[in-house]
Amino acid sequence: MNEPVPVHPAPVPVLALGDILLVSLQGELHDGLAEQLQQDLSHRIATTGVSGVVIDISGVDIVDSFLGRVLAEIASTARLLAARTVLAGMRPAVAITLVELGLALPGLTTALDVDRAMEVLSQRGR
Amino acid sequence: MNEPVPVHPAPVPVLALGDILLVSLQGELHDGLAEQLQQDLSHRIATTGVSGVVIDISGVDIVDSFLGRVLAEIASTARLLAARTVLAGMRPAVAITLVELGLALPGLTTALDVDRAMEVLSQRGR
Repeated sequence: MNEPVPVHPAPVPVLALGDILLVSLQGELHDGLAEQLQQDLSHRIATTGVSGVVIDISGVDIVDSFLGRVLAEIASTARLLAARTVLAGMRPAVAITLVELGLALPGLTTALDVDRAMEVLSQRGR
Repeated sequence: MNEPVPVHPAPVPVLALGDILLVSLQGELHDGLAEQLQQDLSHRIATTGVSGVVIDISGVDIVDSFLGRVLAEIASTARLLAARTVLAGMRPAVAITLVELGLALPGLTTALDVDRAMEVLSQRGR
């Protein structure tokens, strides 16, 4: 009998755009994947010295307390490594749910879309 | 029988670079040493009137809650004496651990290395 092959979901891609790292979250982010993303991002920030991280969540329908915590932790870690994080593309329904959950993400800067997030980061960098 | 000689670890050296004090932490920082460093730094800031302090922790593998608190206290003390503190060279693993411990060091400015930390301080000073 064949053993079931363990499924290792592909890591979330991290793109380098000049002085900024861009991550596009899509669908659900499982525990292992979230942890890997945090480690990937931390290492990329420390090795490349980028000044900012944009996390695009326009493809995310649901932000639960787990994802909320992951996003907050990524932002805190990035800050310790001297990079700013901007959360881009949050859907209105997601924003409402987050506030209802009491997860107002106080430390996180937000922008309507990736374009504006890049603008926010480039203004602050100067 | 000889009494054991009490070991007094050498104090952490504090270098003056123009308008900035530079401290390079290496290995572990024991209780007494941390307290002494905080006192040394405070006196040096008050007597020399420097505008900034850079604490290089690139040689530190582990930042526990004790060291996290010491760093935060040094920064708070420096701020009360009108100097800014920048924490330089934090390793990615250290950043992740700090966030997991809930020690996001909110009042501390960070920089990837000493060079950039000096840049941050000289920009702010102007």
